[in-house]
Amino acid sequence: MIKEKTSRIQTHIGTLSADSVTVRGNDLVNDLMGRINIGDLFFLEVVGRLPTEAESVLVNAMMVAISEHGIMPNVIAARMTLLSSPESLQGAVASGLLGVGDTFVGPSSNVARILQMDAPKHQGSTEEVARAIVDGLVAQNKRIPGLGHPHHPVDPRAEKLLAMQKELGIGDVHTRLMLQIHAYACQRLGKPLTFNAVAAVGAIASDLGIDWRAVRGIGLVARTVSLVGHLLEEMNEPSANTMWELIEASTEYSD
Amino acid sequence: MIKEKTSRIQTHIGTLSADSVTVRGNDLVNDLMGRINIGDLFFLEVVGRLPTEAESVLVNAMMVAISEHGIMPNVIAARMTLLSSPESLQGAVASGLLGVGDTFVGPSSNVARILQMDAPKHQGSTEEVARAIVDGLVAQNKRIPGLGHPHHPVDPRAEKLLAMQKELGIGDVHTRLMLQIHAYACQRLGKPLTFNAVAAVGAIASDLGIDWRAVRGIGLVARTVSLVGHLLEEMNEPSANTMWELIEASTEYSD
Amino acid sequence: MIKEKTSRIQTHIGTLSADSVTVRGNDLVNDLMGRINIGDLFFLEVVGRLPTEAESVLVNAMMVAISEHGIMPNVIAARMTLLSSPESLQGAVASGLLGVGDTFVGPSSNVARILQMDAPKHQGSTEEVARAIVDGLVAQNKRIPGLGHPHHPVDPRAEKLLAMQKELGIGDVHTRLMLQIHAYACQRLGKPLTFNAVAAVGAIASDLGIDWRAVRGIGLVARTVSLVGHLLEEMNEPSANTMWELIEASTEYSD
Amino acid sequence: MIKEKTSRIQTHIGTLSADSVTVRGNDLVNDLMGRINIGDLFFLEVVGRLPTEAESVLVNAMMVAISEHGIMPNVIAARMTLLSSPESLQGAVASGLLGVGDTFVGPSSNVARILQMDAPKHQGSTEEVARAIVDGLVAQNKRIPGLGHPHHPVDPRAEKLLAMQKELGIGDVHTRLMLQIHAYACQRLGKPLTFNAVAAVGAIASDLGIDWRAVRGIGLVARTVSLVGHLLEEMNEPSANTMWELIEASTEYSD
Repeated sequence: MIKEKTSRIQTHIGTLSADSVTVRGNDLVNDLMGRINIGDLFFLEVVGRLPTEAESVLVNAMMVAISEHGIMPNVIAARMTLLSSPESLQGAVASGLLGVGDTFVGPSSNVARILQMDAPKHQGSTEEVARAIVDGLVAQNKRIPGLGHPHHPVDPRAEKLLAMQKELGIGDVHTRLMLQIHAYACQRLGKPLTFNAVAAVGAIASDLGIDWRAVRGIGLVARTVSLVGHLLEEMNEPSANTMWELIEASTEYSD
Repeated sequence: MIKEKTSRIQTHIGTLSADSVTVRGNDLVNDLMGRINIGDLFFLEVVGRLPTEAESVLVNAMMVAISEHGIMPNVIAARMTLLSSPESLQGAVASGLLGVGDTFVGPSSNVARILQMDAPKHQGSTEEVARAIVDGLVAQNKRIPGLGHPHHPVDPRAEKLLAMQKELGIGDVHTRLMLQIHAYACQRLGKPLTFNAVAAVGAIASDLGIDWRAVRGIGLVARTVSLVGHLLEEMNEPSANTMWELIEASTEYSD
Repeated sequence: MIKEKTSRIQTHIGTLSADSVTVRGNDLVNDLMGRINIGDLFFLEVVGRLPTEAESVLVNAMMVAISEHGIMPNVIAARMTLLSSPESLQGAVASGLLGVGDTFVGPSSNVARILQMDAPKHQGSTEEVARAIVDGLVAQNKRIPGLGHPHHPVDPRAEKLLAMQKELGIGDVHTRLMLQIHAYACQRLGKPLTFNAVAAVGAIASDLGIDWRAVRGIGLVARTVSLVGHLLEEMNEPSANTMWELIEASTEYSD
Repeated sequence: MIKEKTSRIQTHIGTLSADSVTVRGNDLVNDLMGRINIGDLFFLEVVGRLPTEAESVLVNAMMVAISEHGIMPNVIAARMTLLSSPESLQGAVASGLLGVGDTFVGPSSNVARILQMDAPKHQGSTEEVARAIVDGLVAQNKRIPGLGHPHHPVDPRAEKLLAMQKELGIGDVHTRLMLQIHAYACQRLGKPLTFNAVAAVGAIASDLGIDWRAVRGIGLVARTVSLVGHLLEEMNEPSANTMWELIEASTEYSD
């Protein structure tokens, strides 16, 4: 199987020398440390340039918005894994992050995909594009990501993000389309649907120039932060065992 | 297996109502969004209160410091996983995060454990405690975490963090001990050892009041940020296949 | 958030008492241990009954067939994770398993989905159904899973599985359809395509009555076995560091 | 960073050619498929040779023994992850496997480490070595892995494995030592302790020549099998949402 290769791997992310580390053209130590926060670094990583102050505020606000939401399934998974494998914090965090998917937190990327990839296929006004998208999803019997919420009739996180976007003067092409999608979907489906936090994140991230495939990363960073918090609490005041007992006590086996 | 349970699960992290989300006593929407960055939220999660401005700068600088370091093994793992399972960004990120362990990035928690848990067992001056710790580790033939680096004779990230800690006026009890451990270890082992970035992170995080068991979380957040960046690059300019070919071309099988 | 719940969780998989463990109606200790192998237990878990002897041979042969294939990307990921986090075998195995996805090993489930879910939507002879499926995938510009292989013009594992299926007298409705899909795809695309191992696994598993959503589980079990082997080798004769150096030596950074 | 490398990676696990796949010196297609089961392949991977018939029966019995034990924490984690990320079976399985650690299933490797690594440090009869090991662990205030069980006063899986080992004529040096450790621990701690399934697995695996660092792999394979079963059930008869509701309903938040 030995063959000679001259293949070269190209990266624009970073490199290092004996006395420096470079990230996307910036000197990590002199240009970034102490000047930007870790949310800004996310922006630099996925957009390729540092955020403006307004963009910095908004990208961090999106992360904060979707970081915590009570004892979510990913928190339960992480606590169960810590109970089973107390030797590895990274294992418990990874176990929880694997739940940032198509059901919770992750649909922000599905929203962004629609706005960035499907919308350009349709002609017409924002309202016409919104109708075409909703009609297409309904025809395929698909859920419209970002709409609906079991606890929040109005999602205060989404409201706040939309208000911040306006106040900070961030372009809102994608957000306006998503709001139209929301309005038309409520009408078409004949019921009020919450414009939820991941709808706002998917739309605003698109307006910030974040590739839809990286939008789920906002939730991944946000949940890594909160999972560490939950896991530290679990070490100090364990509840995973009680959770397990509750489940066992309600489980019935039959052949 | 059905038995009645009246067990209650207690949490101090967060909860929600129809129109609000609460995190450690703060209203997420009104008190946190737009006011703090995601690094601050990490501080709130693990310390239990919001950081001061100085603490905010320092906790974010620590995260930025250890976020990127070229094509690290965890980056290779994540890219390999994306090549194999392009359908799941969270899977590729989790695959990479599982490498935030005892070898790279993760030893910050091992440093913090020594400073927070082992140090109080010893009596005497900072120098005496440092000697006792190093002598103990050497006697057990154990590596001293945070010391040594294959690329950086002096780690510029550590230097910068130490300078920032001083400038920002953050207490430095743990950092001074770690510097003494470094000084005595170089003497005892008869060779210069780099005081590296994870040594600085482990010590400064301890001075910030972060429980040693959550210190590894700083690296987990930092690496989640950079892994998303690498994975987006991998989607746009794939290199995992070339990496694989390089490895295959150099692999020899024998029975 | 406290509300009373009377919800019951139902399971048909297993339960336990003080002196027994039950799995799908079988006494684990008296009926299963020593009588079946672990591949048979997989069959019991996903089909709901114990395999016949012929089925047992075939399900195990499928697992053996796709267990090892040199230094695959999932092996590289697992070895990188072990290098980084030597403290957790389960972490390194999980890191590798996350690569059992749509590109390698995992497409067996995509094959099975076509055979079990798409095929029934079409009318006509096996050949007509095969044509409709291939035409549909080509029209959508989609890859046909299970066809093609970079190393094997003929995949000896697939040939062997097909021969075993015949010899063991296992029904072959799905396999015949997949062979027709293969034949027509080669004709339609105007080039020879390997009928590869995952095509055989997806088809034969369907003939064995395994739900397409569990077919990927065959590869997950098979790869867990081989990953443990690779990781033990990595502990005894480390190569992850050399792999990393090879990659670093070929990496070029540019802004 | 470009430097020339002539490094070679050595592996004894496997390789491939255009018309064959080799695993540890065996032709996968002609020597292994149809002749061995997937449990045997695990033995081949970690011991380096094919098992005898007795060894084959025993290694598979160990896997079957620890595969299922009701709704364990790793099952809950996997179901929560599937609820959150239904798009990735491998993600849900990985999430569950991350729980094969120091608390459940995984301690078999901790048992094996004591038997393989600690025991040789002590002189004397089996009984004396057992005493030295127990006294050492008690002095360090450490739990003795493999002893105790919340549900089984006598673990029927362990009893069965011990009986099979005897019947099959497998050497029992490590098992006898573990039984002595059990006997002395009960005496020393003044209470009956269950000799549980992972004690039996750790001891018998050691007698089979399986490196203690790979012993946890027995549980990883076993749990991959059962997790796929649970996840298929979850897809057909969802219970994760009910589990979540039970937990939410019992959770109390306080600042």
